[in-house]
Amino acid sequence: MAAYKFDVLGLGNAIVDVIAPVDEDFLIAARLRKGGMQLVDEAQAEALYDAMGATTIVSGGSAANTIAGVASFGGRGAFVGKVRADEAGHAFAHDIKAAGVHFATPATPAGPATARCLILVTPDGQRTMNTFLGACQNLTCEDIDGADVAASKILYLEGYLWDPPEAKKAFVEAARIAHDAGREVALTLSDLFCVDRHQQEFLSLIRDGVVDILFANESELHALYQTADFDVALAALRQENILAAVTRSEKGAIIVKGAETHVVPAAPIEKLVDTTGAGDLFAAGFLTGYTRNEPLGRCARLGALAASEIIQHFGARPEIRLARLAEQSDYLHAL
Amino acid sequence: MAAYKFDVLGLGNAIVDVIAPVDEDFLIAARLRKGGMQLVDEAQAEALYDAMGATTIVSGGSAANTIAGVASFGGRGAFVGKVRADEAGHAFAHDIKAAGVHFATPATPAGPATARCLILVTPDGQRTMNTFLGACQNLTCEDIDGADVAASKILYLEGYLWDPPEAKKAFVEAARIAHDAGREVALTLSDLFCVDRHQQEFLSLIRDGVVDILFANESELHALYQTADFDVALAALRQENILAAVTRSEKGAIIVKGAETHVVPAAPIEKLVDTTGAGDLFAAGFLTGYTRNEPLGRCARLGALAASEIIQHFGARPEIRLARLAEQSDYLHAL
Repeated sequence: MAAYKFDVLGLGNAIVDVIAPVDEDFLIAARLRKGGMQLVDEAQAEALYDAMGATTIVSGGSAANTIAGVASFGGRGAFVGKVRADEAGHAFAHDIKAAGVHFATPATPAGPATARCLILVTPDGQRTMNTFLGACQNLTCEDIDGADVAASKILYLEGYLWDPPEAKKAFVEAARIAHDAGREVALTLSDLFCVDRHQQEFLSLIRDGVVDILFANESELHALYQTADFDVALAALRQENILAAVTRSEKGAIIVKGAETHVVPAAPIEKLVDTTGAGDLFAAGFLTGYTRNEPLGRCARLGALAASEIIQHFGARPEIRLARLAEQSDYLHAL
Repeated sequence: MAAYKFDVLGLGNAIVDVIAPVDEDFLIAARLRKGGMQLVDEAQAEALYDAMGATTIVSGGSAANTIAGVASFGGRGAFVGKVRADEAGHAFAHDIKAAGVHFATPATPAGPATARCLILVTPDGQRTMNTFLGACQNLTCEDIDGADVAASKILYLEGYLWDPPEAKKAFVEAARIAHDAGREVALTLSDLFCVDRHQQEFLSLIRDGVVDILFANESELHALYQTADFDVALAALRQENILAAVTRSEKGAIIVKGAETHVVPAAPIEKLVDTTGAGDLFAAGFLTGYTRNEPLGRCARLGALAASEIIQHFGARPEIRLARLAEQSDYLHAL
């Protein structure tokens, strides 16, 4: 049996989240597409920041959030992502290490600032994200530690990596190393607009065997298969030779693997505050169960449980130990 | 009648709060005095930060929190405090302006970094603060806009200003300008240990007529009069020729002015999360009422109401409009 160093190694954009509540009118006035992630340049980011109210700053980044979640469940996680040696980069590195995650990607000494995601949260808990990629554009193949990738059960990649051109190459290289070592590769489609930008390439990744496990929400799935019909999209997904987890917000999640299907309800919550990180934490819970060889239905419930924690507060990193939450969860034990 | 530009102008240390939950053992291991504010140098701050878990970063600073609170009640507030032109300083300036507060103190281009307060919150909601004063040490008389001070109904000073030597001079100069213009000067004693450091000077400020309105909590009052007996301390306070508001956590607050006394209960809360800013926001509510010539009992209830909002979440700036909270408050209307 192989000696694994990490359960999940994540590769993604290293981002600091800058969060403020806004009303719906703010989104309309700023012409922002509610619920999605838009890329912005530094000047746009500054202008939007100036218009935002007082903010709360916490570490974010989709795959980074997922790996922090894996660690919170007690798993061994590693993250690869690029920050600059600035205050935000220092905070990002501190927070992911404080979460118990191995993080050794060197910060760039100069160039664009550490990436920021300006997150506007409306009263319905929906988040609209505006990302300045900054230093993430400096992630290259050089940053991939092949031995670490080969020693991880799962390589987890975020679709957002398809935005910075050099990061895309690192993504492909890491996947090659993982497969050469007999590991599995997971991909999250990240975002509806991200799928819009890279639809054909994402389909190729799936069909060329680069991806073994896929995470998507409903709108991402619709964008991937260019259909407004969920059942049509799900049928198309079944044709791919992969394991796929589709999250459906308050409707729970569906796991498909060929003809096999597992449907789980959403975990109950008291109050929806901020949906940021729901998908990231679903992936954390699912992969935690998966790397422990749990049944797929239980993997999905672990995902839904982690998502339920993250959407009840601002920020996309768990505020409590997910391992403890899992121990005490009626939802999980209802299985 | 004078045309006022501001209801309250606050002078204080401009600080960014870096918050993490910890257990009691963490405080013991780090030999920290629970519940107080310790000054730390940059190396101590770095070491403590390294030991802390993932953090939430929000703007803070005692007087700055108070003025943000005044603005949240709909009052006109101004703040004077020193940051450096770094990322944290940029965030501080953004947040206080976003709160609707006038803030025009120029950032220092070099020198020590913007001040940080590392705040450790234990499960009982108590906060233990560790402040690196940084750029606050560069606040001088030069930063006082005499016209603004003279055009403010109340000048609000924090006792913490007695820590950076140059800021102390700015404090005294601002108080002189305010009194020359016929305005009132308010002081918060800030912190038990701060009173320990500067007890004689604080007493002199009160007795020399520099201070007209005093804010203190129980432990600060005990330190000021060097007694463990609350009634003895209160009797001593009555002898001073000032208006004083003494906050007593869940026991509410007492307002004394010579023989006059007003006792108000604490405003009800659902869940205590983080006591950071309770005193700051009490002062915000009290001064809001006071500048509107409300009866002292109602001023105290406005203070207690604002404090009740701030202690139910992390961070010391209001998350909701206090003006709206006041409109809807049964506690306030029970008066």
